[in-house]
Amino acid sequence: MPALITLTTDFGLRDPFVGIMKGVILAINAEAKLVDLTHEVKSFDVLEGALTLAEAYAYFPPGTIHLVVVDPGVGSERRPILVSTPDAAFIGPDNGIFSLVYEREPAFEVRHIIAEQYFRKPVSRTFQGRDIFAPVAAWLSRGKPPEHLGPVIGDYIRAETPKPEPSGGVMMGSVLRVDKFGNVTTNFRPGDLPAGFRLLIHKRRITHLVSNYSAGKAGEVFAIVGSAGFVEISARESSAAAKVGAKKGDRVRLELPKKVAF
Amino acid sequence: MPALITLTTDFGLRDPFVGIMKGVILAINAEAKLVDLTHEVKSFDVLEGALTLAEAYAYFPPGTIHLVVVDPGVGSERRPILVSTPDAAFIGPDNGIFSLVYEREPAFEVRHIIAEQYFRKPVSRTFQGRDIFAPVAAWLSRGKPPEHLGPVIGDYIRAETPKPEPSGGVMMGSVLRVDKFGNVTTNFRPGDLPAGFRLLIHKRRITHLVSNYSAGKAGEVFAIVGSAGFVEISARESSAAAKVGAKKGDRVRLELPKKVAF
Amino acid sequence: MPALITLTTDFGLRDPFVGIMKGVILAINAEAKLVDLTHEVKSFDVLEGALTLAEAYAYFPPGTIHLVVVDPGVGSERRPILVSTPDAAFIGPDNGIFSLVYEREPAFEVRHIIAEQYFRKPVSRTFQGRDIFAPVAAWLSRGKPPEHLGPVIGDYIRAETPKPEPSGGVMMGSVLRVDKFGNVTTNFRPGDLPAGFRLLIHKRRITHLVSNYSAGKAGEVFAIVGSAGFVEISARESSAAAKVGAKKGDRVRLELPKKVAF
Repeated sequence: MPALITLTTDFGLRDPFVGIMKGVILAINAEAKLVDLTHEVKSFDVLEGALTLAEAYAYFPPGTIHLVVVDPGVGSERRPILVSTPDAAFIGPDNGIFSLVYEREPAFEVRHIIAEQYFRKPVSRTFQGRDIFAPVAAWLSRGKPPEHLGPVIGDYIRAETPKPEPSGGVMMGSVLRVDKFGNVTTNFRPGDLPAGFRLLIHKRRITHLVSNYSAGKAGEVFAIVGSAGFVEISARESSAAAKVGAKKGDRVRLELPKKVAF
Repeated sequence: MPALITLTTDFGLRDPFVGIMKGVILAINAEAKLVDLTHEVKSFDVLEGALTLAEAYAYFPPGTIHLVVVDPGVGSERRPILVSTPDAAFIGPDNGIFSLVYEREPAFEVRHIIAEQYFRKPVSRTFQGRDIFAPVAAWLSRGKPPEHLGPVIGDYIRAETPKPEPSGGVMMGSVLRVDKFGNVTTNFRPGDLPAGFRLLIHKRRITHLVSNYSAGKAGEVFAIVGSAGFVEISARESSAAAKVGAKKGDRVRLELPKKVAF
Repeated sequence: MPALITLTTDFGLRDPFVGIMKGVILAINAEAKLVDLTHEVKSFDVLEGALTLAEAYAYFPPGTIHLVVVDPGVGSERRPILVSTPDAAFIGPDNGIFSLVYEREPAFEVRHIIAEQYFRKPVSRTFQGRDIFAPVAAWLSRGKPPEHLGPVIGDYIRAETPKPEPSGGVMMGSVLRVDKFGNVTTNFRPGDLPAGFRLLIHKRRITHLVSNYSAGKAGEVFAIVGSAGFVEISARESSAAAKVGAKKGDRVRLELPKKVAF
């Protein structure tokens, strides 16, 4: 089984940066199989990168290595890290990009990558994708064990996604992301929505949390748990975003059923 | 020889949908080789998807599997189908996307894919690319025979490309597509153009149907049969679309030589 | 080790042209590994294509074949060529696209590709990428020796990048390219900058030529030698282009220290 490495960046497709990282990988492991998740993450948007990765990684076969480079802190002192789970490995900057992995995986280990013998030299401060992340992913794909790459750390950065906040008896959340088909990812978690909830976005009221799309009625706008673990607002055969007029950053209001004492 | 699967969608490259389909395929067949035709088909434009596929598929080696997901009818009751020819297989929705394959291939078989044991469960109504088409393509690439996937059907959908229509003694056709290099695909077929024809588009007159580009004169705008089987308006070293000012949807007028009785 | 072929074009990703070239290659060599450098070179911009290739090719493993199709002279009489170095091969049109390879490589051989038995027939004048460059790259990747493809030539086209020019006691150069991260490639070479130089762009003065990014101070705009061999204007943790307001074509002024006689 050939080693599989996915790539997720904010590099875009016009410059040869992604191609260069692939060249570096293949120069170390000519057998590696490379799959692009996306290179169109909004520049430096760590949350969007984290959501993209979280939506996709679970669909890949065991042993897949996910290389993610979205980093506003180019050249800063943040650490390169390796996150290992029983099924996958993640390589990228310690800037919170793997926070949704930490949240979802029951078991994982985070290592600070310090084994400079696996880096390209001299290491550029601005293109660590080429000089650190790509070669380390390639060596890992050749079977180099994680413990050779650096020590386990506990103080890695765990970024919080913006959380819904209480406001006058309701919870105010927001839209994290809208995909091409109009699915609207909110920052509510399934556990935030008790029976009897009402979500409001631009005056549209949503009261139905379905377990899969086919349970939604045609024409209805409903809530569903998306593959990144957040509540999404969707419609069965059309764009929920278009139906409710939602875009990234919009507010989503959660009203809970009133509890009264007996 | 590794199994080869091409992918054609209207998913775009920003969201991780294409990457997810590739993950699903590689989790089933780690040896599959994946080639993107395009993911920039105009959203839900079945005709554009059909033309893209028709232009490209014949260049791939025998045994290639072409996975196509362009479908305005998300979640509707249209069937997933497999089209087999002696040289290739096509997997996608039964919405007419393979109509140009039906037209060009002397022998083919269409099957309704019903073998749910090869689907990802639960099957999403909105992302059948991930849950039906990708895994079925992967199993087919591992050698699963078509007859295990579902029964042959005869009532598959054969979409008509918009046909030229008679209008006051001439035929009125239209521009189906303009590519990046300015080749203008019309909805005329080679058989529509008898000796002595005159095609008119925005007052430019074209009277020359050449068999290959080198037969066109420099500077001339001429007609040629494109690889999707339609008459294209081209120029040898420049953009015919720019020369004649043509864009998708524009009218193309065919004047035939007058026949008079002896 | 599977044969590795990179692809660089100005075809864009909407039309199936890149996919078609890959189909042609894989029909000849099913084992070939294909990596995109970019397909977003500005249409017909040979200099941009040459810079893209020059920035990237050295990162690929020995034996890599680089296929480049950026050509304003579609259908013209320019020759298809193969450039061989001890480490790599380059296939594309003889229009200057490989000029930076000629400049950087100590040893290379240029051949006019005339072995028509390796072409797709009939050869289209407008899509030689499909009919000449892709199949020849595929045959080369299968081990066909360069000398079977055509004779060595000496009169290949060597395009000059626009050179800085003297003007009233200073040298006037220009911006060749700005990448997504704001690195500004000028047309100065490292040898053009003696100790004591001053580069001026939009009134920003740069006097520091560093050997690698980490030698630049935070916040500083400095000069560095880029991977294509030109002087680049960069900043350590931000976009130099944004800091100085630079875009392609802008003028860059080089002031030299005054030399006076003893």
